[in-house]
Amino acid sequence: MARIAKAAVLDRIGGEFEVKEYEVPEPAPGTFILRTEMAGVCGTDAHMYYGHLAGVPYPIVLGHEFCGILDRLGEGVTHDLRDEPVQEGDRVIMLPGVACGRCYFCAVARTPNRCTNSRVYGFALDDEFPLAGGFSQYVYARFPGTGFIKTDLPARVAVLTEPINIAVHGVNRGRVYAGDTVVIQGSGAIGLATLIIARYSGAARTIVTGGPARRLELARELGADVTIDIGEVRDADERVRLVLEATPGRRGADIVFECAGVPAALPEGLRMVRDSGRFVEMGHFTDMGPVEINPHWHLMQKNLDLYAVWGGGVPYFLQAVALMERREYPYEKLVDPIIGLGRIKEAVEAIIKGGWRMDGQEVIKIAVDPWKEE
Amino acid sequence: MARIAKAAVLDRIGGEFEVKEYEVPEPAPGTFILRTEMAGVCGTDAHMYYGHLAGVPYPIVLGHEFCGILDRLGEGVTHDLRDEPVQEGDRVIMLPGVACGRCYFCAVARTPNRCTNSRVYGFALDDEFPLAGGFSQYVYARFPGTGFIKTDLPARVAVLTEPINIAVHGVNRGRVYAGDTVVIQGSGAIGLATLIIARYSGAARTIVTGGPARRLELARELGADVTIDIGEVRDADERVRLVLEATPGRRGADIVFECAGVPAALPEGLRMVRDSGRFVEMGHFTDMGPVEINPHWHLMQKNLDLYAVWGGGVPYFLQAVALMERREYPYEKLVDPIIGLGRIKEAVEAIIKGGWRMDGQEVIKIAVDPWKEE
Amino acid sequence: MARIAKAAVLDRIGGEFEVKEYEVPEPAPGTFILRTEMAGVCGTDAHMYYGHLAGVPYPIVLGHEFCGILDRLGEGVTHDLRDEPVQEGDRVIMLPGVACGRCYFCAVARTPNRCTNSRVYGFALDDEFPLAGGFSQYVYARFPGTGFIKTDLPARVAVLTEPINIAVHGVNRGRVYAGDTVVIQGSGAIGLATLIIARYSGAARTIVTGGPARRLELARELGADVTIDIGEVRDADERVRLVLEATPGRRGADIVFECAGVPAALPEGLRMVRDSGRFVEMGHFTDMGPVEINPHWHLMQKNLDLYAVWGGGVPYFLQAVALMERREYPYEKLVDPIIGLGRIKEAVEAIIKGGWRMDGQEVIKIAVDPWKEE
Amino acid sequence: MARIAKAAVLDRIGGEFEVKEYEVPEPAPGTFILRTEMAGVCGTDAHMYYGHLAGVPYPIVLGHEFCGILDRLGEGVTHDLRDEPVQEGDRVIMLPGVACGRCYFCAVARTPNRCTNSRVYGFALDDEFPLAGGFSQYVYARFPGTGFIKTDLPARVAVLTEPINIAVHGVNRGRVYAGDTVVIQGSGAIGLATLIIARYSGAARTIVTGGPARRLELARELGADVTIDIGEVRDADERVRLVLEATPGRRGADIVFECAGVPAALPEGLRMVRDSGRFVEMGHFTDMGPVEINPHWHLMQKNLDLYAVWGGGVPYFLQAVALMERREYPYEKLVDPIIGLGRIKEAVEAIIKGGWRMDGQEVIKIAVDPWKEE
Repeated sequence: MARIAKAAVLDRIGGEFEVKEYEVPEPAPGTFILRTEMAGVCGTDAHMYYGHLAGVPYPIVLGHEFCGILDRLGEGVTHDLRDEPVQEGDRVIMLPGVACGRCYFCAVARTPNRCTNSRVYGFALDDEFPLAGGFSQYVYARFPGTGFIKTDLPARVAVLTEPINIAVHGVNRGRVYAGDTVVIQGSGAIGLATLIIARYSGAARTIVTGGPARRLELARELGADVTIDIGEVRDADERVRLVLEATPGRRGADIVFECAGVPAALPEGLRMVRDSGRFVEMGHFTDMGPVEINPHWHLMQKNLDLYAVWGGGVPYFLQAVALMERREYPYEKLVDPIIGLGRIKEAVEAIIKGGWRMDGQEVIKIAVDPWKEE
Repeated sequence: MARIAKAAVLDRIGGEFEVKEYEVPEPAPGTFILRTEMAGVCGTDAHMYYGHLAGVPYPIVLGHEFCGILDRLGEGVTHDLRDEPVQEGDRVIMLPGVACGRCYFCAVARTPNRCTNSRVYGFALDDEFPLAGGFSQYVYARFPGTGFIKTDLPARVAVLTEPINIAVHGVNRGRVYAGDTVVIQGSGAIGLATLIIARYSGAARTIVTGGPARRLELARELGADVTIDIGEVRDADERVRLVLEATPGRRGADIVFECAGVPAALPEGLRMVRDSGRFVEMGHFTDMGPVEINPHWHLMQKNLDLYAVWGGGVPYFLQAVALMERREYPYEKLVDPIIGLGRIKEAVEAIIKGGWRMDGQEVIKIAVDPWKEE
Repeated sequence: MARIAKAAVLDRIGGEFEVKEYEVPEPAPGTFILRTEMAGVCGTDAHMYYGHLAGVPYPIVLGHEFCGILDRLGEGVTHDLRDEPVQEGDRVIMLPGVACGRCYFCAVARTPNRCTNSRVYGFALDDEFPLAGGFSQYVYARFPGTGFIKTDLPARVAVLTEPINIAVHGVNRGRVYAGDTVVIQGSGAIGLATLIIARYSGAARTIVTGGPARRLELARELGADVTIDIGEVRDADERVRLVLEATPGRRGADIVFECAGVPAALPEGLRMVRDSGRFVEMGHFTDMGPVEINPHWHLMQKNLDLYAVWGGGVPYFLQAVALMERREYPYEKLVDPIIGLGRIKEAVEAIIKGGWRMDGQEVIKIAVDPWKEE
Repeated sequence: MARIAKAAVLDRIGGEFEVKEYEVPEPAPGTFILRTEMAGVCGTDAHMYYGHLAGVPYPIVLGHEFCGILDRLGEGVTHDLRDEPVQEGDRVIMLPGVACGRCYFCAVARTPNRCTNSRVYGFALDDEFPLAGGFSQYVYARFPGTGFIKTDLPARVAVLTEPINIAVHGVNRGRVYAGDTVVIQGSGAIGLATLIIARYSGAARTIVTGGPARRLELARELGADVTIDIGEVRDADERVRLVLEATPGRRGADIVFECAGVPAALPEGLRMVRDSGRFVEMGHFTDMGPVEINPHWHLMQKNLDLYAVWGGGVPYFLQAVALMERREYPYEKLVDPIIGLGRIKEAVEAIIKGGWRMDGQEVIKIAVDPWKEE
């Protein structure tokens, strides 16, 4: 007897997320069906709603951060990415991206995050199969080789693996050394995840700029030594001054992570790095417009290394889960609120133009439970 | 009126540590006098006693890990390595080595730990001035540019900075990535320091092999997930098997730190690394003899990176102090017992041939308080 | 009408290379048939003959360095690794290894040279299909994804791509900086290839130790500044002394490449590196036994980085061909003699116990032309 | 009897270079007098004339790229940076910068190119001593520790060491791998030097954008595979298109070096890099104003590493000389014309607003022979 899945389908840029019903297929060999437990609403989902990303085919089921229960395993799907045996009923974190392994970026440059043939669940796929994003009760992981990791983390924590994997990639690329002073611009999910990973990587002093207040409270609870609320300190020069004062010798931070995704954050952050320091650009997954920088003052004079970090990948997911399973941070506090399929439009509006508020409350990371009634 | 300092002077290899009295001089411009509070007894001190290090001029006052109170500041000594102003009476950690800044290794290779003109307090110096090692009530820091760091850490913690600086250097060179599985061979001060720094650098799983039991207990208290007592598991093959079993997919550790200083630890540790992993050799500060390795199996087949780490230096001391000042580990437990100048010979004997025992107790790190009566 | 290929089949360790005839199949989709033009005889082939490599299934057709003409293309085989369109009749360099792209080493460690599911033509394969090594008139590239690169280099040059790809991997890992002094131990194909790549990478001074005389002459022709014949200078201490004298300040080389494959070369080469230098172990593809090293003197005191380099891979093949196509070195001189299928046993004997001589001449790189009469 | 030196003194921003006479002092211990043979006119000299660099004290004797004859050696100056003994009469390349060896950037960050106490001949010094820049018949190297390298290169070649040292630093930081496709923006001295060093570092394909025509001719003579004249191809989009077409798979270059020093070159160059490639910013030694870049398209989407390279230093000078002494490139052709002290103003005007022309000829690198009559 056929099973039915509800999924939220976005019909066009700026359109509606209509909840529709689809039949759940039987998985082909090498593929599987996931029963979605929770899916994060990413800033990129919101930007896709507003049309800031090129090449997205509408209608589409969004949602690329998700976890759930292995529902049906196609033939040959027997182990997870940690070589652990799996069976139907296991909770897994599913990786949204599937790289081809053969193209120039996979085989030569060895950066499959730029794979030219990649498939990403919740993004542009090659057809219009609807059960291909996390904002759906079931996901059909129909590309052989789709990665997943079995875990006993609660769904509310496991759902954070994707943004944490990006933070891991960023910290790997930029390198945090034991004892470093670290600035993180932005207090959204990626910013807070970067705070955790930077602390795990030996940061002795962490400074977070962002907002709103509730997120900065959480940053402090996660160990940030200094937080600067951009809603209160509205002048960039003043923010730069405050950050420099909080660094050894007022030289600036050893490393700055740009996780705000606002163009103006780039030159502001570059001013916060010490000479011979490092800067990691990891906030601009979509085109938010250009910004002026000064090649002499912001780059050359600083003798700077800058790493622009696109997405994550298999190694970073594994690193993320290994740390999350230590349960040393209150990850569940990063997820709030949890909404049903019917409220996704409210969520993306809150992210882009609603001042990060839903129901009169400041949100941290909004997640979707596709089984929730409303 | 001249002040008098007691110092323990080793007259020859295998000789006696005689406590003698010396006049404390007034410091020349650019130099200073330190009133020693505590000095660690390093394995290298013990090896120097037994003649395992070439080029040491006897008689000598040993001790290159120490902290104390700035007693007299020569003209122009006004700030510490963090650019903090200092005055007489401040507690400081003193760096034992002074690099020339001009030789090939300082200026070209940029590894001043191999400076060809370096001066190291507690090691071979250019004359026989006695107040030049930590096993003395006062140290005359008579080489301009001698580094020191003001701190409010208790002396019992501050005295650990030198071994922790070596651990920082080792972790910087070998790189620990967030989520890594790490093996540490050796549970002495450097091994335990490496455990702390590896955990600070994101190690998700740490395995320590060593002994005796009391040290491994402390390793577990510091966060080691697995400890293997080489006194109990006496077979190297069995130790390798146990370590592999404790690593993901039984592939071996992402990185192994050799902090045991026993030649046989090298091939044993190489077998514990996964393919394409990293190995850090940081235990052989003195010549303990050769050992057989197999270039095919231990190196090539593993596609391995190996980093041999000689000592530390200014950046690593600063990194170490930045972390220690977070006070997140019970550092003081690493120091035990604290002895007076008269018991140094007992200490070096305990380290090399006494099974790490003094007064019937297993020792962790032995430290000297030169003001202690006995 | 079925076509017939002659192939040299080794029946057992130390056995015979019998020339047999096999039917050439039609290629399945994603695969192709190569008409072999030339195949190099690698030291590893010789070692496999003598049983120095575990896991080889006999009988076997050896030969993993080869080039030839695309003979029949299976469906879907349309472009080479440079994305150039190909057709039957094109000359190509074929990559012997096919990595799975999915295992831990491919997807997580991103070192597919340690792929746990790799297939390597000329090595152990999963069945006993005979046309799977280069010592054959035709090779059936029957694993989909087998890499190849179209080129107009002559076969006598193209056949060198595999050893040159290893040199590229070694230089990439160990890094040669413009102006470096470089030592290469070993003057076989990999040693000479490393000489070329090190010079391409900015080596200002190159020193080659090896033999016999004809190879060292070629090394000088390729640009080596100093050569040391190990047949003439038979004392390792003396060789080390000569090398140190040829380096700036007698400090030793910035980087040493071990391409000799003799265990004793490891400690000898380690003595030739300057402090804070680099050492690349790339000669021990098979188990030639253990060797003694001193962890204090050979590693720690030197503050050394050591890179053990296993094989090559897609990026290195592409780098190699890009340089070879500049035609700036007389590559064809590295290949001599060229023999027929019937003389492979003589070749492997010459390599291991014949003092690198065939027909009374010193050989450089022996290559097999499977169409040659004798 | 006192000797007299003529020097060209710039009195103020945009002022005159007046040739004045000064007495040559006797050198203090640790210092020396250089009899200048030749001094390059750097773009930075021209920018200092136009006031584009902050903190320059006028009047000043410019010129920080120079070589000459050791004229008088102060006590204790006996060896050069290669540990070669020197005597009066030797030709040497003098390093303009003297780092303190003790500040945070020297001792901790280990990037003495950002030394906070550095002295640079030809730039801001601590007093107004006139014989402190290369546009003078004698230079008093009055800071102990001033580096110099003995060489038998002709002065016309030796004078290029400073710009070549910057190219070496840039290539070291950005890393050129054997086989890379490299773009160099700018065909001035640093651009052409980068072309040479990139080729020495294994670049298989080099593309230079710049002008005027004579410089591009020289670029081709030095080995550039493709040159694009920005005077002819005036549209940036078209230049980007041409570069992409000249790269494998039209993916863009593996690495781009920005040596043009024009703000607009930054976004243009970023578009020329392939995804997961590298970009080296080394053209903006002075403030030429801001420029717009797009964080999403120019950085994030490209998963880029960017290295901003400030100046050079001791290791890079030594690397540069080691290569130059191979005499494999026609370095002397980079220097043209050679002028006397009286024509410096013409030179700086030619560089900034004269279209790189003097006497109706296109210049390459202008050098000053302070002994030349006119």
